[in-house]
Amino acid sequence: METIRTVAEMERRASELRESGAVIGLVPTMGALHEGHLSLIRRAAGLADTVVVSIFVNPTQFGPSEDFESYPRDVERDAALAGEAGCDIVFAPEAHDVYPAHYATVVHVQHLTRRLCGAFRPGHFDGVTTVVAKLLNIVRPHLAVFGRKDGQQLAVIERMVADLDMGVRIVPGDTVREPDGLAMSSRNSYLSDAEREDAVVLSQALELARGLFDSGETNAALVVGRMREMIESKETTEIQYIEAVDRATMDPVAELGENVMIAMAVFLGKTRLIDNMVL
Amino acid sequence: METIRTVAEMERRASELRESGAVIGLVPTMGALHEGHLSLIRRAAGLADTVVVSIFVNPTQFGPSEDFESYPRDVERDAALAGEAGCDIVFAPEAHDVYPAHYATVVHVQHLTRRLCGAFRPGHFDGVTTVVAKLLNIVRPHLAVFGRKDGQQLAVIERMVADLDMGVRIVPGDTVREPDGLAMSSRNSYLSDAEREDAVVLSQALELARGLFDSGETNAALVVGRMREMIESKETTEIQYIEAVDRATMDPVAELGENVMIAMAVFLGKTRLIDNMVL
Repeated sequence: METIRTVAEMERRASELRESGAVIGLVPTMGALHEGHLSLIRRAAGLADTVVVSIFVNPTQFGPSEDFESYPRDVERDAALAGEAGCDIVFAPEAHDVYPAHYATVVHVQHLTRRLCGAFRPGHFDGVTTVVAKLLNIVRPHLAVFGRKDGQQLAVIERMVADLDMGVRIVPGDTVREPDGLAMSSRNSYLSDAEREDAVVLSQALELARGLFDSGETNAALVVGRMREMIESKETTEIQYIEAVDRATMDPVAELGENVMIAMAVFLGKTRLIDNMVL
Repeated sequence: METIRTVAEMERRASELRESGAVIGLVPTMGALHEGHLSLIRRAAGLADTVVVSIFVNPTQFGPSEDFESYPRDVERDAALAGEAGCDIVFAPEAHDVYPAHYATVVHVQHLTRRLCGAFRPGHFDGVTTVVAKLLNIVRPHLAVFGRKDGQQLAVIERMVADLDMGVRIVPGDTVREPDGLAMSSRNSYLSDAEREDAVVLSQALELARGLFDSGETNAALVVGRMREMIESKETTEIQYIEAVDRATMDPVAELGENVMIAMAVFLGKTRLIDNMVL
């Protein structure tokens, strides 16, 4: 497996691969790979001839009080795991290469970024869309795989790629869960034992919502209210938001139905976790 | 010569051209072609195997009180002129195809867009960078030619292309002038006889500045002051701005020198014209 550390070298290699006729698949990550990422890499390997995994803890998508500094970093470990899952090239650039002096451009997706995480993490999605636009331009993949766990991010990126005619296929990858249901996340490593125990309530609340919907309940406020009660019953939890939204527009809905996403962000102590489900 | 009217067809054709190994040159225009545009097309034809000229009066780069509705449109005339200058493909899409329902993405270049035209035309450069990013993604040219007359636009686009790793060469094309010095512009057609006569003062003021600089004067405020006097001496003129800025950053400079751009926007009656010179 190759490791590429500069933007210029990645561009050169990508253009070589394109010209050879290889189908290129990209899996953008911030490293700290877990089974969720590995399933995305396997998905890419099943669809592409050459799989590029980018590992870049992107400073511009973190807020000033967020965990940019403490975010776990171990490129060698990540590269080994990625390779086992089918990655051919790890692209791990430095921040000063991605954002050189006088860097000034932002890709902004309106509307879809206003609610949910967008409301609580100002600038976060601008950081995400900008770095993803750059990665797509540097690697020029035929397809790129993004996890459904970041449900709003997936919708925002699909919107950007369509709007800017980027000519890449966005492939969603299913959320991978721990045996008790907790969605895999690099941030799960921050949890204390008590928080880890309580964290199971996020997926349990989604299951509760699914059960209510399956038995005919379509009142979004009622279902979200029941989820809130369940989550608030745990000691270490603090809900940032739970909302039922249209999957395509991220607009809130009053009625549950097809293509409705129920999404949440919940603090377990100081650790903020997200999870969602599309009906 | 081919005329392509849809985004999908242009993408298909561009990908066919790319695969054939042809070097593609793009000249983005809003139509109303004049000798300035034609010189850009000729420049592209000298550098590329296939020249695409886009003709699209982009609504998002006009302000609410600007001339979007009245902007001259005649695709057949433009296509004929473009063809004579060496254009192979005219790409003239409809606005609803470029910006379909639920369109939500903006490419924004910070800093360089704050001054000069950016200060007086809020949102203008977002409209420009967004549509240029889209055109570059749709046509996937190896090079794209932009006129130096829109000096700030050229700097902003160079910044965007570098920042987003767009992998296209931006080729600047010199300003073409009428025999009396007036820079060619589609908006010159709006001028009354009296305004047309006065309009020569824009290039005369730039010549004055060049003369002062060549004879050793480097005080930007003094030179701009002399330009102002000259332009204000004409009855139909009203200066919006004259500034000496660093060509790369668009920051104002106190001292004239290499890579300083002196740029201006001046109203002749209701018609706003721009011109500039790089020392």
